[in-house]
Amino acid sequence: MTGRFITLEGIDGAGKSTHLGFIRDWLASRDIAAEFTREPGGTPLGERIRELMLSVDTKASLEAETLLMFASRQELVSSLIRPALDAGRWVVSDRFTDSTFAFQGGGRGVPEARIAELERWVQQGLQPDLTLLFDVPLDVAKQRMAGNRQLDRFEQEKADFHQRVRDAYLRRAAADPRFVVLDATRSIAQLQLDIAAHLAQLAERG
Amino acid sequence: MTGRFITLEGIDGAGKSTHLGFIRDWLASRDIAAEFTREPGGTPLGERIRELMLSVDTKASLEAETLLMFASRQELVSSLIRPALDAGRWVVSDRFTDSTFAFQGGGRGVPEARIAELERWVQQGLQPDLTLLFDVPLDVAKQRMAGNRQLDRFEQEKADFHQRVRDAYLRRAAADPRFVVLDATRSIAQLQLDIAAHLAQLAERG
Repeated sequence: MTGRFITLEGIDGAGKSTHLGFIRDWLASRDIAAEFTREPGGTPLGERIRELMLSVDTKASLEAETLLMFASRQELVSSLIRPALDAGRWVVSDRFTDSTFAFQGGGRGVPEARIAELERWVQQGLQPDLTLLFDVPLDVAKQRMAGNRQLDRFEQEKADFHQRVRDAYLRRAAADPRFVVLDATRSIAQLQLDIAAHLAQLAERG
Repeated sequence: MTGRFITLEGIDGAGKSTHLGFIRDWLASRDIAAEFTREPGGTPLGERIRELMLSVDTKASLEAETLLMFASRQELVSSLIRPALDAGRWVVSDRFTDSTFAFQGGGRGVPEARIAELERWVQQGLQPDLTLLFDVPLDVAKQRMAGNRQLDRFEQEKADFHQRVRDAYLRRAAADPRFVVLDATRSIAQLQLDIAAHLAQLAERG
């Protein structure tokens, strides 16, 4: 049986990383073998691309940045995601292609059709089985991130940028049933109950 | 008046780099303002991508490598080539997209149609006005490179790889009149006469 592919999405400060540990424990408790990864990164090549992209000193054109994202993604898909799914393992990725549509597309204006071309080129039909979208209003996200740690280039962007990113996520979620929108202003315990229910549902799918 | 875009192509050891200085002097003698660049590289981002690609320790899938090439190329096109051409300057690039068709395509088997999709995505119709293909038989190229310097990953590939690369170049040249195939076994002086004639022709074009 083929594995399941789960992605976690949301604006910075939505709290998605908090729930990775819970998902890991849940899968382990069911004896479900799983790989955990993140984007950009997740492979030796991808991590080097991630460094390149997050460094403040290297300014890339929007289109070059988008191609770099997909180069990292190509490597992740061919070296980790497809082999794991083919072997029946689950894959959980902290961000995937929806982030490119939200950040480079909605946030920075790369036309959706251009991103979709690269998505087809790299994924050849592969899509997540479940996408958990952690959704919070901007002021909550900002509060959570304040004083947390040094902000990288993406996180330094202005508020209207983050609003466009959030809007792009919500538009995508409304159009595709693989998305579950989680109100991430709720308590961690409430969210975990919700996440567990969605994971159980996915495990039961034939 | 828009500038002219010239690319230099050929297998490693064909001697194309030798002629860059000549082209530079020729253009200067005619008071033609020009930018010189190379691929992969040519921009701060591109040079970091070049390092990534030429380092022996980072193995990328063929498709990821191809996307990295085009990320570097996108940056070069948008930050250097288009602005220079629009300002009436000439651009001379040591390798461009034909290298991807020859090395990743002919040499390593990435389908030509997949490379052409990325070419359209990045170049949006931009093509060189003149491509000088420095062509030599493999044994000549090998002799030239022997003991020259430490060979990078591309140069370490086997002979049949380089033969496929050469064949791919020659096929492309036969199909597109922007190519000039130069028999690079001839003397440097003979080649320079030939190159000067093609540059003069290009300068006279309306």
